[in-house]
Amino acid sequence: MEITRKNFQESLEVIESAVKEASFIAIDGEFTGLNHAGLTHTAVFDTPEERYHKLVQGSGDFMLIQFGLCAFIYDGSTKKYTAKPFNFYIFPRPFSRAAPDVRFSCQSSSLDFLMSQGFDFNKWIRDGIPYLRPVDEARLKEQVIKKHEVFASPAFISPSGGSQPGGVTKGPVDIPPEQKDFVDDICKKVEKFLESGEHESLSLPPCTGFQRKLTYQSLQTKYGGELHLQSKTGENKERFIVVTKVKGEDQMKKMEESRQAQDMAEIDAAVGFTHVIKMISQSGKLIVGHNMMLDIAHTINQFMYPLPQAYEDFKSMCRCVFPRLVDTKLMSNTQPFKDRIDNTGLSYLHHLTQMPPFVKPEVEISEDLDNKYKDNEALHEAGYDAFVTGQCFISLSNFLGQFQQPPSDHVPPASPLLEPFLNKIFMMRSLDIPYMDLVAADLSPSRDHVFHLTFPKDWKSSDISLLFAQFGNVYIGWIDEVSAYVSLHSKSVASSVLKTLCKKGSVYRLMSYNDHKNHTLQEHKNQYKWTNQKPEHQSHGHNRTHSHSHSHHTTVPSSGPNLDGEESGGARKGTKRPHSPENGVPVVDTDSGKKKAKSLNVDAPEFQSRITPTSTPEKDDNLQWPENINSSGKKIDKKEEDKFFPEPDDW
Amino acid sequence: MEITRKNFQESLEVIESAVKEASFIAIDGEFTGLNHAGLTHTAVFDTPEERYHKLVQGSGDFMLIQFGLCAFIYDGSTKKYTAKPFNFYIFPRPFSRAAPDVRFSCQSSSLDFLMSQGFDFNKWIRDGIPYLRPVDEARLKEQVIKKHEVFASPAFISPSGGSQPGGVTKGPVDIPPEQKDFVDDICKKVEKFLESGEHESLSLPPCTGFQRKLTYQSLQTKYGGELHLQSKTGENKERFIVVTKVKGEDQMKKMEESRQAQDMAEIDAAVGFTHVIKMISQSGKLIVGHNMMLDIAHTINQFMYPLPQAYEDFKSMCRCVFPRLVDTKLMSNTQPFKDRIDNTGLSYLHHLTQMPPFVKPEVEISEDLDNKYKDNEALHEAGYDAFVTGQCFISLSNFLGQFQQPPSDHVPPASPLLEPFLNKIFMMRSLDIPYMDLVAADLSPSRDHVFHLTFPKDWKSSDISLLFAQFGNVYIGWIDEVSAYVSLHSKSVASSVLKTLCKKGSVYRLMSYNDHKNHTLQEHKNQYKWTNQKPEHQSHGHNRTHSHSHSHHTTVPSSGPNLDGEESGGARKGTKRPHSPENGVPVVDTDSGKKKAKSLNVDAPEFQSRITPTSTPEKDDNLQWPENINSSGKKIDKKEEDKFFPEPDDW
Repeated sequence: MEITRKNFQESLEVIESAVKEASFIAIDGEFTGLNHAGLTHTAVFDTPEERYHKLVQGSGDFMLIQFGLCAFIYDGSTKKYTAKPFNFYIFPRPFSRAAPDVRFSCQSSSLDFLMSQGFDFNKWIRDGIPYLRPVDEARLKEQVIKKHEVFASPAFISPSGGSQPGGVTKGPVDIPPEQKDFVDDICKKVEKFLESGEHESLSLPPCTGFQRKLTYQSLQTKYGGELHLQSKTGENKERFIVVTKVKGEDQMKKMEESRQAQDMAEIDAAVGFTHVIKMISQSGKLIVGHNMMLDIAHTINQFMYPLPQAYEDFKSMCRCVFPRLVDTKLMSNTQPFKDRIDNTGLSYLHHLTQMPPFVKPEVEISEDLDNKYKDNEALHEAGYDAFVTGQCFISLSNFLGQFQQPPSDHVPPASPLLEPFLNKIFMMRSLDIPYMDLVAADLSPSRDHVFHLTFPKDWKSSDISLLFAQFGNVYIGWIDEVSAYVSLHSKSVASSVLKTLCKKGSVYRLMSYNDHKNHTLQEHKNQYKWTNQKPEHQSHGHNRTHSHSHSHHTTVPSSGPNLDGEESGGARKGTKRPHSPENGVPVVDTDSGKKKAKSLNVDAPEFQSRITPTSTPEKDDNLQWPENINSSGKKIDKKEEDKFFPEPDDW
Repeated sequence: MEITRKNFQESLEVIESAVKEASFIAIDGEFTGLNHAGLTHTAVFDTPEERYHKLVQGSGDFMLIQFGLCAFIYDGSTKKYTAKPFNFYIFPRPFSRAAPDVRFSCQSSSLDFLMSQGFDFNKWIRDGIPYLRPVDEARLKEQVIKKHEVFASPAFISPSGGSQPGGVTKGPVDIPPEQKDFVDDICKKVEKFLESGEHESLSLPPCTGFQRKLTYQSLQTKYGGELHLQSKTGENKERFIVVTKVKGEDQMKKMEESRQAQDMAEIDAAVGFTHVIKMISQSGKLIVGHNMMLDIAHTINQFMYPLPQAYEDFKSMCRCVFPRLVDTKLMSNTQPFKDRIDNTGLSYLHHLTQMPPFVKPEVEISEDLDNKYKDNEALHEAGYDAFVTGQCFISLSNFLGQFQQPPSDHVPPASPLLEPFLNKIFMMRSLDIPYMDLVAADLSPSRDHVFHLTFPKDWKSSDISLLFAQFGNVYIGWIDEVSAYVSLHSKSVASSVLKTLCKKGSVYRLMSYNDHKNHTLQEHKNQYKWTNQKPEHQSHGHNRTHSHSHSHHTTVPSSGPNLDGEESGGARKGTKRPHSPENGVPVVDTDSGKKKAKSLNVDAPEFQSRITPTSTPEKDDNLQWPENINSSGKKIDKKEEDKFFPEPDDW
């Protein structure tokens, strides 16, 4: 169901009841852009904290312009899901001259892409639903109260009198010769209006701000408490004054009161889409998204609270606004799904999860809504994408049922089988940290086999490979024209790299990842005013290892059962074996009695060994294979690699 | 005539001939926004240089999205003008993955406003004409040449061979297990394609970047020089590989050559709208605009060269791109027009200049074009605004004919009567410097009667007025919540202000405008890396007085006849008398033989005394009268005054 400002108010009830009865809620957003070019593009060795800062700086000023919400309601008797998809157009129309006049960025490739997918930009601007962050709502309401206090004061009623403090009047402005005719004309019009007595109010012709000033001044001097004046905005944005007859101070007061009530109602209406986000947030329902980092960050920032500088504060904010999240992109990149899914783009995933070994879930669009999505694909429309994401989630979830004892073909959203995926957001193009963990310390794998290399401008991939030839295959993560991260496939030889390759007088400069990280951390600290990590912010008793420290795997005193005790299972020849995600992951939330101490009944060894997300360098779309680098290893234009990052990888 | 990318190429000839035969050309632009909130908003005492820097910082990242061009052709025999209006939609579609992916800002009030005026945002994004700055065009062409050099090298043809420098191949990537099926399937498809011999080329199904990498790798290893591979983008932005059979190296070379030619043609097409700006620029025709500061700055920045940091460099750039400009907003704010025009907004000006004492010009839209504008107003559509601006210009110009000897009812664009207005751009909301002078030193009026005041947060206008009461009326130019400029109406008492009001222990701090300016100049110099003024940049022998110097009117050794020798004429009671604009204005361009030593025959004393632009504080729209400050002088929310600045004053 499409929701614009035209049907928003009348649809709120339907939306609310859908949210209330939902088993889980899928969401999706469309944006005016993805990231700014330059240094804030994602890098394969970003820590989650670095990634967050890049997100804020590189994506923060783009805007969410379409929000998809799909409530999925499970019926135990029919074993079917009913889907209630809503597609919201969102636009921050400045509803009054005091409302925020939002400035935001656009990326031409993103607009071009949305256009090609049928996004209606005219509808967006004309009919988009407005929104107000709670803090803006409060500020505007305060302003209205203050304004009407002023209007209600005696100084306003009789501007010439008043010796009370603050009520001293500024001398009237001289009327310049070229404005005399204008003012005379206005006065004549008003005189006639008062004499005729036919109408209660009179709209003066539109004029400039200065002319409105002269009008206010002349009419108030001349007619004092007899007239009520109000500036209004016409259909074509022209500004004009409406003059209304007033009988006595009482009526003036009443008019001002009704005007205040109008102003308040206007603000309430302007809160708009923020109502929906509050609704979702307060429902406590499981929120499902696909590759949802941007969706979450923009939703919080745009409708609720500006994103904080400190990463740990962002995590707290996420937990507060969305207490339960699952990312289907993370699920499908994690065992037991990873080996069965060769492309985790949303539409392909949808396609795959409807075929064996998955079971196509039975989902019907509610009869109460228009069912445009029933027979029509509308990929990249937020409402449709949310609808599809939810279906993927159901299919993936149900697949896990075979690992239960007894096996089950329905896994509900609250099942403990889903807990390994809870409150973790997929990190795109990360080599060894697959997700941001919202409820625990992030993974911190060893990067002792990673090096930072600076080299002459004309170096190509092949030159770097050649330099490291004696240490076997390497993964090269370009940073810019003259630097790159180099990661050894064979970790065992890492310790001899610096000794062997660091030579006096060489044209390149090599340092360990950790040394380089410490160096740049120091540099950036002042530049971006990053706040420091708060290692013990999560008080679940988990240690947190800073990624620039030299320690390897940390020993984690787990407070609950550990899903995966094995270290070898998921590793494959030639790929990196990341930390097991259980390092630092509280599988059981000790803060919540409800979830405590579930026995997982996960028996299948395959599941046991594979629930660890593994992220191979090769898997990340476009990661290592910009098409302007041909197979001979010649680099054509390294700067152009940036081009590949804006591409959404969900196609 | 509406021009989009669909009819752009075929219309170029019509546009070119219109530009060539034009007597003058009117232009107009529509933008995604006007300015960012905050410190870069215009202030009444900005110097032109300060204004330029605010423009670059505060408006530079908004985008021109519609360009209006209207050629006016005068027919001496019929004494009529023919108008040829063109309305261009402009959008920087990234035509290839190497093209600039432009990021730009939007202001929601501006989009909302354009929408209300009928702007079609879908047409803008879908059909907008692309553009490329000359420097981007050159860079892209160079890249194409480099790329094809690489493809033509032996290393490309046989990736496994080649021991030549730079041709060392990186080891192939392992195929992860979950991709094996995908790769096998591709190989089977290609095998079948080669066997059947039915078609010359085969489009593989769309896939991820990583899968394309695997495809390239597998097919090149297997089929070497037999196949030519190329990645393409489909209608829905999906990426896929096209496989083509190749017979021998010769054909491979030919295919690469045709591909290079295609790439070059693609870039030529992408230069798009830049062609039109070059056309206008090279025509040397008089360019007329209304309040054209933003139009000029954005046009140069977007289509030609990034705006320079130094203000003097900007002036040079303007002279280079648009050697002859006239701003009708400046004209109508200048005598002899000022007293006859009470509102210089474009539509109102158009209305006024069709009535006595002006004469409605005879203008017909060319029969060759669709004449949508003939009977329909389309205000705020760039093409229509350009059409209207040109009509205003004709009417204003012709009005000057009465001051000639003998009087004339037709004043051509090249008339010396227009020279006082030439190459000056109107400065909105400036108190005493009405324009930026592109060909000479800017005006530098004395500001000895202006003061900078810092005060407690709760001060209102009335408190400031009270503080200065003994010095008569003041003009208050708010800067923020705690500071303002205060300008005395009566200049004669200026010298005693500091002595009288600067007291130890007072809650406010007062300093002269000049001291404050020197102070902030010093502060900003590092912050924005402003380059210094170059006082003698204009080598016409005119002195330039820095606005922060203490000297008053400068004596100007004029190199030509001076239009106005009088100093008293234009001054009116209560308004400021600015410098005469002829200070520093070369009325006769000594560089150009054609224009030399015109005798102006301007006799009417009214004209003589009034050709000086005067700018009264009261005249500037919305300048002193934010409507949330009521007549009792109570200030409701000073911060909200900002709200009034974004409003275009051309309504």
